[in-house]
Amino acid sequence: MSIVVVGTVGYDTIESPAGSRHNVLGGSATYFALGAGFFWPVSLVSVVGRDFSSDHRQWLAERNVDLRNLEVREGPSFRWRVRYEATAARRQTLALEPGVFADYQPRLLPDQCRADHLFLAGLAPAMQASVLSQTHSPRIVAAGTIAHWIVDFRAELLRALADLNLLFLNEEEALLLADDSSLLRAGRALLSRGPQVVVITRGEHGLWQFSPDGVFVAPAWPLEQSVDPTGAGDTFAGAYVGYLVRQGKLAPAICRPAAIYASVLASFAVEAFGCERLLSLTWQEIDQRYRDYLALTDQHRPRWTSP
Amino acid sequence: MSIVVVGTVGYDTIESPAGSRHNVLGGSATYFALGAGFFWPVSLVSVVGRDFSSDHRQWLAERNVDLRNLEVREGPSFRWRVRYEATAARRQTLALEPGVFADYQPRLLPDQCRADHLFLAGLAPAMQASVLSQTHSPRIVAAGTIAHWIVDFRAELLRALADLNLLFLNEEEALLLADDSSLLRAGRALLSRGPQVVVITRGEHGLWQFSPDGVFVAPAWPLEQSVDPTGAGDTFAGAYVGYLVRQGKLAPAICRPAAIYASVLASFAVEAFGCERLLSLTWQEIDQRYRDYLALTDQHRPRWTSP
Repeated sequence: MSIVVVGTVGYDTIESPAGSRHNVLGGSATYFALGAGFFWPVSLVSVVGRDFSSDHRQWLAERNVDLRNLEVREGPSFRWRVRYEATAARRQTLALEPGVFADYQPRLLPDQCRADHLFLAGLAPAMQASVLSQTHSPRIVAAGTIAHWIVDFRAELLRALADLNLLFLNEEEALLLADDSSLLRAGRALLSRGPQVVVITRGEHGLWQFSPDGVFVAPAWPLEQSVDPTGAGDTFAGAYVGYLVRQGKLAPAICRPAAIYASVLASFAVEAFGCERLLSLTWQEIDQRYRDYLALTDQHRPRWTSP
Repeated sequence: MSIVVVGTVGYDTIESPAGSRHNVLGGSATYFALGAGFFWPVSLVSVVGRDFSSDHRQWLAERNVDLRNLEVREGPSFRWRVRYEATAARRQTLALEPGVFADYQPRLLPDQCRADHLFLAGLAPAMQASVLSQTHSPRIVAAGTIAHWIVDFRAELLRALADLNLLFLNEEEALLLADDSSLLRAGRALLSRGPQVVVITRGEHGLWQFSPDGVFVAPAWPLEQSVDPTGAGDTFAGAYVGYLVRQGKLAPAICRPAAIYASVLASFAVEAFGCERLLSLTWQEIDQRYRDYLALTDQHRPRWTSP
């Protein structure tokens, strides 16, 4: 069993009501790998520039992340500059400099082509297709997408849903991709396009998961304050896929606890800037919060029945 | 076991993105009584004008609501005119005409003074105190409050929390009353003021319940569209208290299913304008949605434990 992730690795500059950080380790593949790495080793496919720090390479390598296919090229690493507004999850991209990722053509290593679990972390539709064409029928193909691509490539992305087993998006992305104002209709419409499971994350408002098994609705872990939502979605997807691989299957009875573990990981991710909290996180903390989450959402189902 | 509710009964004019209704049956005590009436009889304390329709009186009487103390006075009934914005639960009061409720001094009947469950439905602090002074140590005193009173009487309302067993508010009201930006801190702060349980309803985002038993977090029933949120909070409180009375106690193991039944009732309430849906609602529909809710939120807790 193996997991391959293709996505960005680079540096983020983040402003939020809680403060700011400059050029901290970020990128969709980074967060996915950190989330998944708590459950299963991850093999990463990406590119960085010469400016990518050996410390950061070391951080990832120490956390179950295989970096053989993290290419290093002349030029700057992928950089993103973002500002979060005080209210809710509104964000504004201040700058996006793809650097060496701009003309990157991912080439999977032979063992990566044979991976049985693949995550496409918010790639352009053409890159997504190119990566898929290199693989030998993986058991599970999962992907996230981002508003940036949906705006320009909605039709392609919708067609590409047929290739996916698992789709992860946030509420805004789901409504945009389905072109609907109702999240319930949007989730059902996206599910009908091919994926076995569509997971819609709603930040502090939890998640809605759509599968042939029906809808699963789960609240988020209640936080006093979200410091920085950067990477929460990719961390969520990483933990989710990592949990599935650890369980050895994609089945309804597995997808619900997978979504809860994923929520727990995402709740840690937003507690500090960038991936700071994920880097200090221990399995004991994850396990404790998972148990606390179960207690917090325990419905004490009653013995009393209808009058 | 008995339930007494003191609050408004009157007519609402409602505009929402789904349409509008003029002068439909409304009022906080009306919604509370309709919600509670599915579980237990409710005795109502309020006042209406001569314009109050005998049909509406009949509707309530047929639904487990005792109207002996619904006074009829010369003058117009309480009227509220509200507009809901397209996005989320933002609302704007266009007009509030208290009519005969303006100088109403609730006088409980002798049996109502001895009621063991009392709900104060968004009353002004002075009226709340006056009603409480008439009662003979009820087992459970529950109350809702509204932003209108919090703005002008925050200190009084905070002091009055010591008299309550149960407090129901929505997210906006909780943050306003606690004067905090974090709902988690707000809920804990309000709980520390006296109530045994503080229930914060969050509309489509579910509810947070605070009690010495800890926090309980539950998602809302997912709806394609909310037609009209009017009365959802009072319906919720009614179903909650009705369920408690039916169970005969206020205990942590009862408060969680109470909150779920209450959510289910509120989810019906918002499906149509005013109390239309509550009037057509059957116990079979409530029971089915309750079961569906349990299935929808079933976490499929895994046998797998920590690595």
